[in-house]
Amino acid sequence: MNDASAPTHDVYDVVGIGNAIVDVLTSVSDDFLHQENLLKGSMQLVDGHDAARLYNKLGQCVECSGGSAANTIAGLASLGAKVAFIGKIHNDQMGQVFAHDIRSTGVTFNTLPTTSGPSTARCLVLITPDAQRTMSTHLGASNSLTCDDIDTDLITRSKVTYLEGYLWDPDDAKEAFMLAMRTAHAAGRKVAMSLSDPFCVGRYRDEFLHLAEHQVDLLFANELEILSLYQVDHFEDAVKKVKGHCEVAILTRSEKGCVIVSGDDVITLSAHPAHPVVDTTGAGDLFAAGFLYGYTQDKSLRDCGIMGNLIASEIITHRGARPDINLKDFLEQNMPV
Amino acid sequence: MNDASAPTHDVYDVVGIGNAIVDVLTSVSDDFLHQENLLKGSMQLVDGHDAARLYNKLGQCVECSGGSAANTIAGLASLGAKVAFIGKIHNDQMGQVFAHDIRSTGVTFNTLPTTSGPSTARCLVLITPDAQRTMSTHLGASNSLTCDDIDTDLITRSKVTYLEGYLWDPDDAKEAFMLAMRTAHAAGRKVAMSLSDPFCVGRYRDEFLHLAEHQVDLLFANELEILSLYQVDHFEDAVKKVKGHCEVAILTRSEKGCVIVSGDDVITLSAHPAHPVVDTTGAGDLFAAGFLYGYTQDKSLRDCGIMGNLIASEIITHRGARPDINLKDFLEQNMPV
Repeated sequence: MNDASAPTHDVYDVVGIGNAIVDVLTSVSDDFLHQENLLKGSMQLVDGHDAARLYNKLGQCVECSGGSAANTIAGLASLGAKVAFIGKIHNDQMGQVFAHDIRSTGVTFNTLPTTSGPSTARCLVLITPDAQRTMSTHLGASNSLTCDDIDTDLITRSKVTYLEGYLWDPDDAKEAFMLAMRTAHAAGRKVAMSLSDPFCVGRYRDEFLHLAEHQVDLLFANELEILSLYQVDHFEDAVKKVKGHCEVAILTRSEKGCVIVSGDDVITLSAHPAHPVVDTTGAGDLFAAGFLYGYTQDKSLRDCGIMGNLIASEIITHRGARPDINLKDFLEQNMPV
Repeated sequence: MNDASAPTHDVYDVVGIGNAIVDVLTSVSDDFLHQENLLKGSMQLVDGHDAARLYNKLGQCVECSGGSAANTIAGLASLGAKVAFIGKIHNDQMGQVFAHDIRSTGVTFNTLPTTSGPSTARCLVLITPDAQRTMSTHLGASNSLTCDDIDTDLITRSKVTYLEGYLWDPDDAKEAFMLAMRTAHAAGRKVAMSLSDPFCVGRYRDEFLHLAEHQVDLLFANELEILSLYQVDHFEDAVKKVKGHCEVAILTRSEKGCVIVSGDDVITLSAHPAHPVVDTTGAGDLFAAGFLYGYTQDKSLRDCGIMGNLIASEIITHRGARPDINLKDFLEQNMPV
């Protein structure tokens, strides 16, 4: 190739930055959530001691790699996108599990593991009979992400840098988050962000409002998160607030589908039917994977939303937040023409 | 209570002794097994280096506690039996996962973990589209089981001591295995054993023949294992050989059900239908759980076999070799009256 521009094979579709977490999944009753004062559907941060205390009360578990942005990136890899992930593991067995799993899907993952301090992050995912998940996360080594871990060259070469709101919790990770956004924009790239969780929004509302207005090109939020962000009670009011505040906002509404707001345009899409609904863990993460896959393939926002709904419908039919099947095949077989 | 005999609550139904393993499950194609020279349905022992080499070639995995006798014991606990397990973990994250999971089902598990040497055993379970599993096991810390780990008091107080043939592989475990059998018989208790795997039988045929004739009261074997034990080509010939050689032999035949040989009696039972068949990992282990549950409840051998078939039918409808649901409820709802 004599072309002076960067060769195509060097360009990443998406680089994700987030907490590097191994999920610990188990079934619980609604009564158990009540006894433990856990709010269904939420994510709470816990220290190592509280994580161990809760774990000891749980029945048999299954371990599988998780992490919000990491799930999205693994989904994108399964769709055939060229992707990378930045997140901090400890060099322990669970860290090795996380690294194996994300690399095995074809994701570039080169963040240096910690060799001292807390162990790899884990998230206790409690699944109730209604397929809802309630999460208690011990961030562990994920807390150690700093600006030193941000591979600015990688970000410069990625069409989209995707960040999870959860990353706002660890102190140094916030700075790393900001560095990544500045780097992406300086290279003329797009920044996408997921609000992650209504409580996460509650903790950082002012900062997130500022980010949404000034630094995020694609904002992903579910209904509770966007209501919390704008402190309104009705979804329609949130849509009004979003208009003109975010460049593009992608609002997911579980079984009600999604609404995409771009300038004055509002695109409303039905959810793709899923049966059986076994575990909703990762629904938002995999919606983002489908959407971003379409986005990096220059599809219309409507088609991006359809892809997001489709991929979300796959992940909720089985346990865990990583795809069970090849999503590229799934998309080809199920995407309306 | 003024009764001079040992109080009932002190008696265990079954104590299992086996390798303490964390399973690493993933889907593979038939071609992959071929490329890796792996024989479908078999278990091969691998060293740490070969386990790592194979793991690096696998896609995304799920970790869950396994081990043949450990699965049986977890199944018995879920059925409501009073059970204990003896097996060797390392004091590492995977060992903690194993210990948590088996204890969480109500199993007494007090074997001292190793603090140096190899890590907790793991078994790479490769699931093909036909729901068959092919296993590569790195025994790791399981190899360290010795006579010191055999809680003879526990065995004396258990109606049945259940041993897996796989335990014959680690050098010192074989002695522990023999000590457990002697202890059980000295206390007037029963000894049950699973042949585990046709290759395992091939490695130790003469010793297993001797055990079957002289030291095992209940022998569990699947079709390939019993053919290998007696070096015959037809199941009917194996049944003839079994008669008068084993006290009670329980021969499982996958979708063909099971045959129980006791003295001159031969009881033939159909398999319980299972749908969908997702992963046959643990079918034999959970058959043994159902059978032994009936046995310790003084049910007829026929009813024990029916219970075995029923419990095996549950485990193959989902991934992993540990029960997903409360088996006591499942048995009550599905046992023919």
